[in-house]
Amino acid sequence: MDPELAGAYTVRPIGTVHSPISDPAQAPRQGDEGAPDAWISFAPGLATAVRDLRPGDDVLVLTWLHLADRDVLAVHPRDDASRPLTGVFSTRSSHRPNPIGLHRVRILTTEDQRIGVGDLEAVDGTPVVDIKPVLEIRDER
Amino acid sequence: MDPELAGAYTVRPIGTVHSPISDPAQAPRQGDEGAPDAWISFAPGLATAVRDLRPGDDVLVLTWLHLADRDVLAVHPRDDASRPLTGVFSTRSSHRPNPIGLHRVRILTTEDQRIGVGDLEAVDGTPVVDIKPVLEIRDER
Repeated sequence: MDPELAGAYTVRPIGTVHSPISDPAQAPRQGDEGAPDAWISFAPGLATAVRDLRPGDDVLVLTWLHLADRDVLAVHPRDDASRPLTGVFSTRSSHRPNPIGLHRVRILTTEDQRIGVGDLEAVDGTPVVDIKPVLEIRDER
Repeated sequence: MDPELAGAYTVRPIGTVHSPISDPAQAPRQGDEGAPDAWISFAPGLATAVRDLRPGDDVLVLTWLHLADRDVLAVHPRDDASRPLTGVFSTRSSHRPNPIGLHRVRILTTEDQRIGVGDLEAVDGTPVVDIKPVLEIRDER
């Protein structure tokens, strides 16, 4: 076993999702499948980190899917029992060892301590752990 | 302050990067800027989660950039002092409150406990925390 694997790291939320979606069963599976607009409120002390976010920016929001089951290693994709059990690293299931969600959204509005974003498929109260700009050259990253 | 912000979560590495890049100063900033091929070795107990990864798959590798400075809130993009200090959430700097790296790579080979991938811009020993398939519809996520 690699020595690094023994380690663990602490994720501290930088913000929180405020969304009309309160029930995970209602959440669309991906943001382009009917997700609503939402707010992301930021933790105090991060004004410098967020100050260059602008309306119109396309960003990747990384969340911590706090309702996920971290012990699940295989799932039926999209909860479709007719599809074979698939290792979670080949799926976008929220259930996985480190339940980090990755959401591409557009910033709609910016305020002092929060931003409004479009099409965010995360339930109300989901912790946000990072925001990254979409890259122009290979914008999948 | 949102109650959720007081929380913290533990990331447990699922694997480790094995790369010829040992010095962060040598690492290209993005994978399409001359990054080498690399191996990702998996922690024991994850065979089920990785079993459906296949050569040719394009995946997003999420890493924990363990050498980053988590207290940095603004940087000169690409370490270019002529560019203005920019809030880290508008940059891809590794220095940020939760230093999660996002790397799009292609799987080249798969073995029992490791996979070979192309163009991974991470230093040897970097912890891997998640692997996700690239989505077909909106493959930026």
